Amino acid sequence: MDFQSKKLINDPNDVVTEFIEGLVETYPGLQYLDGFPEVKVVLRADVSGGTYDKVAVISGGGSGHEPAHAGFVGEGMLTAAICGDVFASPPVDSILAGIRAVTGPSGCLLIVKNYTGDRLNFGLAAEQAKSEGYKVEMVIVGDDCALPPPRGIAGRRGLAGTILVHKVAGAAAASGLSLAEVAAEAKRASEMVGTMGVALSVCTLPGQVTPDRLGPGKMELGLGIHGEPGAAVADLQPVDIVVSHVLKQILSTETNYVHITRGSRVVLMINGLGATPLMELMIATGKAVPRLQLEHGLAVERVYTGSFMTSLDMAGFSITVMKADQTILNLLDAPTKAPNWPVGADGNHPPAKIPVPLPPSRTKKNEETLGRPQQLSPEGHILEIAIEAAATAIINLRDNLNELDGKVGDGDCGSTMSKGASAILEDIKKCYPLNDPAETVNEIGTSIRKVMGGTSGIIYDIFCKAAYAQLKANSQSGITALEWAGALEAAIDAVSKYGGAKAGYRTLLDALIPASAVLKEKLAAGEDPVQAFALSAEAAVAGAESTKNMQAQAGRSSYVSADILASVPDPGAVAAASWYKAAALAVKNKYQAS
Amino acid sequence: MDFQSKKLINDPNDVVTEFIEGLVETYPGLQYLDGFPEVKVVLRADVSGGTYDKVAVISGGGSGHEPAHAGFVGEGMLTAAICGDVFASPPVDSILAGIRAVTGPSGCLLIVKNYTGDRLNFGLAAEQAKSEGYKVEMVIVGDDCALPPPRGIAGRRGLAGTILVHKVAGAAAASGLSLAEVAAEAKRASEMVGTMGVALSVCTLPGQVTPDRLGPGKMELGLGIHGEPGAAVADLQPVDIVVSHVLKQILSTETNYVHITRGSRVVLMINGLGATPLMELMIATGKAVPRLQLEHGLAVERVYTGSFMTSLDMAGFSITVMKADQTILNLLDAPTKAPNWPVGADGNHPPAKIPVPLPPSRTKKNEETLGRPQQLSPEGHILEIAIEAAATAIINLRDNLNELDGKVGDGDCGSTMSKGASAILEDIKKCYPLNDPAETVNEIGTSIRKVMGGTSGIIYDIFCKAAYAQLKANSQSGITALEWAGALEAAIDAVSKYGGAKAGYRTLLDALIPASAVLKEKLAAGEDPVQAFALSAEAAVAGAESTKNMQAQAGRSSYVSADILASVPDPGAVAAASWYKAAALAVKNKYQAS
Repeated sequence: MDFQSKKLINDPNDVVTEFIEGLVETYPGLQYLDGFPEVKVVLRADVSGGTYDKVAVISGGGSGHEPAHAGFVGEGMLTAAICGDVFASPPVDSILAGIRAVTGPSGCLLIVKNYTGDRLNFGLAAEQAKSEGYKVEMVIVGDDCALPPPRGIAGRRGLAGTILVHKVAGAAAASGLSLAEVAAEAKRASEMVGTMGVALSVCTLPGQVTPDRLGPGKMELGLGIHGEPGAAVADLQPVDIVVSHVLKQILSTETNYVHITRGSRVVLMINGLGATPLMELMIATGKAVPRLQLEHGLAVERVYTGSFMTSLDMAGFSITVMKADQTILNLLDAPTKAPNWPVGADGNHPPAKIPVPLPPSRTKKNEETLGRPQQLSPEGHILEIAIEAAATAIINLRDNLNELDGKVGDGDCGSTMSKGASAILEDIKKCYPLNDPAETVNEIGTSIRKVMGGTSGIIYDIFCKAAYAQLKANSQSGITALEWAGALEAAIDAVSKYGGAKAGYRTLLDALIPASAVLKEKLAAGEDPVQAFALSAEAAVAGAESTKNMQAQAGRSSYVSADILASVPDPGAVAAASWYKAAALAVKNKYQAS
Repeated sequence: MDFQSKKLINDPNDVVTEFIEGLVETYPGLQYLDGFPEVKVVLRADVSGGTYDKVAVISGGGSGHEPAHAGFVGEGMLTAAICGDVFASPPVDSILAGIRAVTGPSGCLLIVKNYTGDRLNFGLAAEQAKSEGYKVEMVIVGDDCALPPPRGIAGRRGLAGTILVHKVAGAAAASGLSLAEVAAEAKRASEMVGTMGVALSVCTLPGQVTPDRLGPGKMELGLGIHGEPGAAVADLQPVDIVVSHVLKQILSTETNYVHITRGSRVVLMINGLGATPLMELMIATGKAVPRLQLEHGLAVERVYTGSFMTSLDMAGFSITVMKADQTILNLLDAPTKAPNWPVGADGNHPPAKIPVPLPPSRTKKNEETLGRPQQLSPEGHILEIAIEAAATAIINLRDNLNELDGKVGDGDCGSTMSKGASAILEDIKKCYPLNDPAETVNEIGTSIRKVMGGTSGIIYDIFCKAAYAQLKANSQSGITALEWAGALEAAIDAVSKYGGAKAGYRTLLDALIPASAVLKEKLAAGEDPVQAFALSAEAAVAGAESTKNMQAQAGRSSYVSADILASVPDPGAVAAASWYKAAALAVKNKYQAS
């Protein structure tokens, strides 16, 4: 199938110059030569050619490989990047302009990916610069391992391994080495690195119609970075198998492209080709490292995962393996200000995983305080009565709640709530430490969430946890009615904070908020606590009834018309008012009876 | 059209755990809690909860947004990231495990994107942690600007602006502020940030069939980061117009989502949604900055371009604008070891572009030494004769070369070469400084490349530039035959180095390499230079003839069968032998005549 590429660009002819404009807006450390559209050179803002006292390291080539190469310009890596048009070698005059802009008395090293156009254009620029008196060396990188030798005049293509050569050379130059020494380090690095790619899609050129030569369920192995066909097309495999195959090819003793043998130290680069999510790259990394270690007997010293040398919007990745001695590792680890060199990959690995921490002193608490006490205190007894009354009220109301919910929601409010209530009635006999009100409230939350799925379970658990924390904070001096009122308020606040509902949103809060307000007010006015509790329960019932006039703000009810809503109170609010009222009446009855 | 997502993964159920395994292989500074598959927590390897003396900053949520959130764990940013399954909020026990693993006496701040599931799960974990004695605060980020208020209970979605809140909070915590202060900074930041997205494709979930609700040529505006539909679908526009529209929406005074007015200082984030090449993101940046400055009257203090908060493999980006005072800028600029926080975006901007440097003293050189001398020296005269003879030979050979090339290549070798030869004959009268052999050779290269396209023009220019540099280096003591031989050798080396050909590759070098060898040998043996030149020319001719037996390694000839090649010498080699021989004979004739 052919398709027109879909891109967020302006004129396809301007993509490279506009890329550079965005790049320098992003990174204050970068500048560009004012020679658009022909001269497209990104350079370090802090380097001025005539006076630069270190070896300048220059690379570049066709564009479409971003962040390569301009994203690797910065102290400790490239001094300048010469950008061609998409997939086209930059012209000689651009390269010369870049050389002149950053090269001082120490000279410059050109690092060139092995493509004929780049070799010739950079080569001519090098010879021209030499004739102008500059000291110039050039190192060509051909790290492709996809095709067997001999590769003739074209040789092996330059791929993502070039980035590692940039870093080695840039760090060597930053350390003050001479041009010959920097070139020697770069050359040595270029001979120790191998790369192979795998793609799921072709790349689409800006403004062009692209034939998708890869069908569904197919992948391409051993491809280049310019949309050219790969060495083979195969059925898509799990990435584990793909990684294994690619690593074998890179480390093949038949081609002997990289001289890596068992026991060698290596670095690994997993490089996204432009449209590959980081998740997939990391998955490949997670598979490649143990394979290198266990199957190939290699010590993996560093891992670089990201999109470094892309091919426009190609989906897929390349794997690069580089032999690494301590010198190479030191150069790779050296600091750089290049924006796209990966941060945090240096240094040695601690154990990857650590045990999940246990809840603090949970076991101890369990033993000492949890579990139903052998004898209930008077307060514990009243608490038990209140809890049982509340839970029983919900169970009795199950069908009513389901019916209400059937009109405005999914009809399971009663069933869900009564599951929680049943669990409470079951657990209260087994394990509630009823003489400790705070811990008991905490256990109620646990019972509820054990059996109640969905949002209502977690909201009631938040309610209980917040009440628990508030009670716990005040438990030293004993729990009075004022503490209970404070706990109710804290619980309401937590549900509102995490759930996002406020008064008037047609939720359980529309029953509980009026109850809390009345409770607080009556207690402050010196009302008898039991009476205050009962009065606040009436406010809860009135609040639940008032939800008939409210527009739903969340859940399925928000899709129900105002007409229907007007005849039905919110079932969650009705439930809350019901258990609250049942508890209040049970406490009142108990005190009246005694 | 529905399509099966094509991904480089293993089991779709394991993508998050395998992502984390790859992440910790890449970054030695990160660890994870050994609680797979339920507990998926990435944390700083250098922080141990019980003793950590700063405020821990914890975030997380559903996966599929990589590098968010785990890629932002590191000193100065997040202390831990809690990872749910793809697009699913992490369970309470995971969040609790993360809190317990990194929270010390200073407490922890939870930063949560505004989604109901995240709010409730993080909320319950917060309440539970508080009940265990931890100090916990929570800040909810809702930065979406796509939909008009009111947004009801759900509120505005949390998008890429959350990353900026992470950075502000992480830096505040690293500076030693208290939990209340860190939470206040995070809350203030969350109230100053707005985001809106635009997508070209839907994201594809691992292992699922995805309906592409966006047709060709369409884009979606105001989308979320979970594949949910956006606020509107529109025809794809140039990115300039898209950026302008999105910025207007974010800065709308009607919604007044972010209180940014003319003259405000802001930071900008251009965030890729997963499959967007960096080139396109940078193009958007390059357009957004001047629009913010010129149309909205804002000072753009920092720009962050990259893929920070993605939506699996969605193509598109979001734009985030945050109001920034000096406190915010200092916190954003503060150092961090988080791997995916952008490097190099801090600090103030120098001028973005600098002038293209002029060739060193080119003008001076032109005036003083270039141009045809009024009177030729004897050596200058002989040089003129040799050049004219060589060029004329090529012109005379044009049709023969085309014929040869027609059999093995594209048939234009003679035409191309004779263009260069004609340019030489024209320029030699006008501007060759014939009394200076080095500069003359340099000018020959310039003449050639001015008119000869393709590979041959650049190769001959490299040939001349390398010879020039060699002659120039030795020109103090006068140019003797030995210097000419040295220049020939240097020129051949350069062509071989940059072009990649060696002896036997069926190129012009197969004529020139034998010639160079014979010339050097005869001169070393004390042979008369003119005679040595003539003898080496015979070697060139023999060398060109010998290419009949060579397999082509480059260019179109590499696709021609050996049978055909065996009857045809390489036209490039024939041309090289011809001009070389013509020059040698002309010199010989001149000396014999004089």
